[in-house]
Amino acid sequence: MLAEFDLIRRYFMSSQEASTASNGVTLGCGDDATLLIPPAGQQLAVSVDTSVVDVHFPREAPAFAVGHRALAVALSDLAAMGAASRWCLMALTLDQRQFADDEATHAWLADYARGFHTLSQQHATTLVGGDVTSGALSIGVTVMGEVPVGEAFTRSGAQVGDLIAVTGALGGGAGGLALWQQGERDLAHPLLSRYLLPQPRLAAGLALRGLATAALDISDGLLSDLAHLREASLVGAVIALDALPLADELESTLGREAALRAALSGGDDYELLVTLSANDLATAQQRLASLGLTLTVVGHCCEALGVSASDQSDLSGYAGWQHFSGDAP
Amino acid sequence: MLAEFDLIRRYFMSSQEASTASNGVTLGCGDDATLLIPPAGQQLAVSVDTSVVDVHFPREAPAFAVGHRALAVALSDLAAMGAASRWCLMALTLDQRQFADDEATHAWLADYARGFHTLSQQHATTLVGGDVTSGALSIGVTVMGEVPVGEAFTRSGAQVGDLIAVTGALGGGAGGLALWQQGERDLAHPLLSRYLLPQPRLAAGLALRGLATAALDISDGLLSDLAHLREASLVGAVIALDALPLADELESTLGREAALRAALSGGDDYELLVTLSANDLATAQQRLASLGLTLTVVGHCCEALGVSASDQSDLSGYAGWQHFSGDAP
Repeated sequence: MLAEFDLIRRYFMSSQEASTASNGVTLGCGDDATLLIPPAGQQLAVSVDTSVVDVHFPREAPAFAVGHRALAVALSDLAAMGAASRWCLMALTLDQRQFADDEATHAWLADYARGFHTLSQQHATTLVGGDVTSGALSIGVTVMGEVPVGEAFTRSGAQVGDLIAVTGALGGGAGGLALWQQGERDLAHPLLSRYLLPQPRLAAGLALRGLATAALDISDGLLSDLAHLREASLVGAVIALDALPLADELESTLGREAALRAALSGGDDYELLVTLSANDLATAQQRLASLGLTLTVVGHCCEALGVSASDQSDLSGYAGWQHFSGDAP
Repeated sequence: MLAEFDLIRRYFMSSQEASTASNGVTLGCGDDATLLIPPAGQQLAVSVDTSVVDVHFPREAPAFAVGHRALAVALSDLAAMGAASRWCLMALTLDQRQFADDEATHAWLADYARGFHTLSQQHATTLVGGDVTSGALSIGVTVMGEVPVGEAFTRSGAQVGDLIAVTGALGGGAGGLALWQQGERDLAHPLLSRYLLPQPRLAAGLALRGLATAALDISDGLLSDLAHLREASLVGAVIALDALPLADELESTLGREAALRAALSGGDDYELLVTLSANDLATAQQRLASLGLTLTVVGHCCEALGVSASDQSDLSGYAGWQHFSGDAP
């Protein structure tokens, strides 16, 4: 058993050592701690996210997706700050008894590491520390990024009159989960891909610097996350239901009502929810278009606290998101 | 269930907000990420450690000790670098079904948080981020500290002729575990205290700056951890068995042979193992004495690779440490 754990340690260490020289790392994994050169004149943005089997992802999810997803959801928090990602630490807890034999363990670990590394390399994020322990499958990822002093997005900067906009499309996380539960296993399916291989919007976060007045990432559903922003900014919100950008194939798969529900109160989308002045909208949309991403206005901030639909629809029936839960009581 | 999770979020947030202004934190828990002001002219030392129930600590361990211990073992890695601790992030995974009712959950969480915070305050370490999820009990702690450029201890700096020394006393972790398994539950017992409430040697690490040529913390047992140092530094080691500083009551509790085994190959001691020039020993001992701590020479580095006992005892029978494992196969 320990041999496998040593193996993944080496696997993770060797792949990160190649990139350390270029990313402010003076002493990589393998000592008691890693030494980093912090960015001059910038603030460090740090966050931690834990992904637990049967809670955040299904036990049978492909190992590649498990590795990708654990890092993606953590990076999404940096995106929501407008921070550039630099470093991460990964604490993997693994129950080797879930595998038939050492070969199965090895295959799982290699696939998991490939998912994690592929994404970390896409976002120039160096793995600078890790821990591998034995126990129920769970991955804790700490991410560290940088942002110029005073330029980070918070949740509290939205002003009355600001537009409310979202990157990309909504409802794909919930739609993908529904498909997974119906037995769909093809990761190339656009909805399943949205659920199991979410893309952290780091480039969008950088592009929106100086434009967004507040931001967060949509992990628990638009309405739930918007509530955090409303409360922090002391504003109300009006949402235009017919403006919601629905994920590809969502409506055709689930039908209109369930698709709307997925977009409003589904979770695991990991798109950015931002507020911005109407004057900055065109600039923001141009910048995101150059990244191949849309920015869709879905409402605006108003003085009256609370949230309502512009067409007077009743929003009270859209409950919050509970993630995947395979064996919840 | 969520109410309890919200509760601990608030508990942890409120207690850290009071100290944020003084420790480089510009935006605390509650946003997507926390913004930190990195130390100018210093390197950041970062590390992550996961503590898993039934692997690293017994399921019935007092919640106070679980919180203390999870942070302590992570801080110990900063101590081994000679770094000053600044910040930490805590990812708590908790299975509420292990508790009889909400009141029991609440009591456990309050006690756990008290253990964590008491230690974090002792070491001026601000909790700057966290995540609370549902699953098998496990705590991942990321620690961040600072150290002047070039002054961190590594494992690779030991020279032939250097003395090998340890802080405090050895064998207490293994002795305490043995007592726990025999039914002892009094945390005031010196051995049980060593096992469940280890003290990270951060002050000792700072005091040894400029003196230690290499360092690490003893988590897996003296011989195992010394092997890492020997391999990284390309030196051999000679150990004087009769010089080993045994934890209080260790020999009287376990007998001479088992006490020696606990000191050599027991784990969970979290003392520092350092190498230093004989010329610096008196200074190092004086500095540690002012902290109420001993520094005991237990051997020296030699040219011939491998490890041997100065009295020619056979060291080959002392196996490595496997931590606590309540239900290992």
